[in-house]
Amino acid sequence: MNNLEIPNALIIEQAHERIKNYIHRTPVLSSEILNDIFKTEIYFKCENFQKVGAFKSRGAVNAVMSLNENELEYGVCTHSSGNHAQALARAARLRNIKAYIVMPETAPKVKIAAVKQYGGEITFCKPTLAAREETIKSIIEKTNAIEIHPYNNVKIIAGQATAAKELIEDCKALDIIMAPVGGGGLLSGTALAVKYFSPYTKVIAGEPDNANDAYQSYYKKELMPSINPNTIADGLLTSLGSITFPIILNHVDQIVTASESAIIEAMKLVWERMKIIIEPSSAVPLATILENKFESRNKKIGIIISGGNVDLTKLPWL
Amino acid sequence: MNNLEIPNALIIEQAHERIKNYIHRTPVLSSEILNDIFKTEIYFKCENFQKVGAFKSRGAVNAVMSLNENELEYGVCTHSSGNHAQALARAARLRNIKAYIVMPETAPKVKIAAVKQYGGEITFCKPTLAAREETIKSIIEKTNAIEIHPYNNVKIIAGQATAAKELIEDCKALDIIMAPVGGGGLLSGTALAVKYFSPYTKVIAGEPDNANDAYQSYYKKELMPSINPNTIADGLLTSLGSITFPIILNHVDQIVTASESAIIEAMKLVWERMKIIIEPSSAVPLATILENKFESRNKKIGIIISGGNVDLTKLPWL
Repeated sequence: MNNLEIPNALIIEQAHERIKNYIHRTPVLSSEILNDIFKTEIYFKCENFQKVGAFKSRGAVNAVMSLNENELEYGVCTHSSGNHAQALARAARLRNIKAYIVMPETAPKVKIAAVKQYGGEITFCKPTLAAREETIKSIIEKTNAIEIHPYNNVKIIAGQATAAKELIEDCKALDIIMAPVGGGGLLSGTALAVKYFSPYTKVIAGEPDNANDAYQSYYKKELMPSINPNTIADGLLTSLGSITFPIILNHVDQIVTASESAIIEAMKLVWERMKIIIEPSSAVPLATILENKFESRNKKIGIIISGGNVDLTKLPWL
Repeated sequence: MNNLEIPNALIIEQAHERIKNYIHRTPVLSSEILNDIFKTEIYFKCENFQKVGAFKSRGAVNAVMSLNENELEYGVCTHSSGNHAQALARAARLRNIKAYIVMPETAPKVKIAAVKQYGGEITFCKPTLAAREETIKSIIEKTNAIEIHPYNNVKIIAGQATAAKELIEDCKALDIIMAPVGGGGLLSGTALAVKYFSPYTKVIAGEPDNANDAYQSYYKKELMPSINPNTIADGLLTSLGSITFPIILNHVDQIVTASESAIIEAMKLVWERMKIIIEPSSAVPLATILENKFESRNKKIGIIISGGNVDLTKLPWL
């Protein structure tokens, strides 16, 4: 697969086949109380129950399982302080290869421990983009490891697409599918899956007001970097990439944004009413419904819950 | 059904048939990480996802749906500051009858609001056993409402038994089924369901060290009241009843207890690893495994997660 080729239906189906024994087919849950509150039918695709607690396992397993014997030899590397780091370390362990993970020295201890638990080899760097890029460059020079970017990579995108594919299979005739957007791996995968497997379903992305680079880029039709993003939705701080942006521009129907207070309220509603733990990023689509950012009443709406990795000692409503 | 007749297999099957359209058939979840940690296979029956967030919906619906037209006329009443109050109010609303709920004036606002949301009529009383009994007596005299005791009632017990019945249907050949024990409604129902539907499975109850009246009563073979119980497992503060105690004595294989710190640790483990919200009472069986209170290795163990109603602003590890 050429690294610039946008995944087609067959490629997404092959990705699903490739990863299915290494990931969970996560459940789709709904709540009558939330449906009453929002006057609509919402189906939550629970990637918080996924391996490593996030959809990132899908892309990482697809990318690592796609490598041939020669590519495998030197291991893989990435920079990430979040769920992709764990997911890649786990995927590498499945094939018994090395995973070199560049993390900012400011990364939370719990995330560092999780990467180590999966056998990832961590290199710390200063928490700047320049330091990160320099560090990963030197690791690649030293080890010949293959870089697996967290989202700007077609194998990652094809893997993330399988979450929406499963949702479409389990829940027919959805009017809308929503996903949060950070770097755009999940959103671009979702948009492609919807295009191929449920073309009459609309794709609407949710983004924090305070990290709205995708919103800006989408409506200006020009890739705008995220400037000083500052949101509790810590999975959505990154900017769109050169591969994810055009897919989103072409195949996403709408991008809407939510305030920090709505994100917190939506997150707490899901915890209280559904008794499941979702991370702030996952609450962003529901937060946009809470703020009436689009016509959501009396619809059948699927929402991809991206993950459930939360520091239980630092809850945003406390 | 005579109020002293212990539910048999047919009565539990009829209860299940009676309630099934009004409750959720809750999922059974497991976690590879927890299985690795505990070196055993654990299957969690998730009554935290049940209507009103707790198994109590089963018994309450069974009791209310069992009433005949004459009995229905004057409504139902109970005293409860917890999940049974909500469950009974909801069950009464399903049949469009009154539910009079006696609550201590110290009950948390969130629980009062929940009972009102289901249309329950609340009468507050001083937080003493005497005040509670006097208040409910005066309500019965005034309204002729039928009292539905939270656990010392065979219809309640038959309803609670359906959780274990479903678990046995969904998960074959369990070595052990565990439930927490407070008043004993869930535990006695569980023990009866296991006796009828999976007789080779052992029943082990988990109880807090700090509210161990069931443990005391079971081993002394004499009903001992709970003296100054003081545990974060707030659903387990009550003492066994005259109906639940003999069932437990005859059909439960073992009662083990857990420390407060183990209860908190087990609760946090489930939140972190399974991404589901369980209340402290639900964590007690797992806490006894954490403390090696019985031979749990390399077994197939079902645990009934009793509920998920937690004050999210007062987490025990904070």
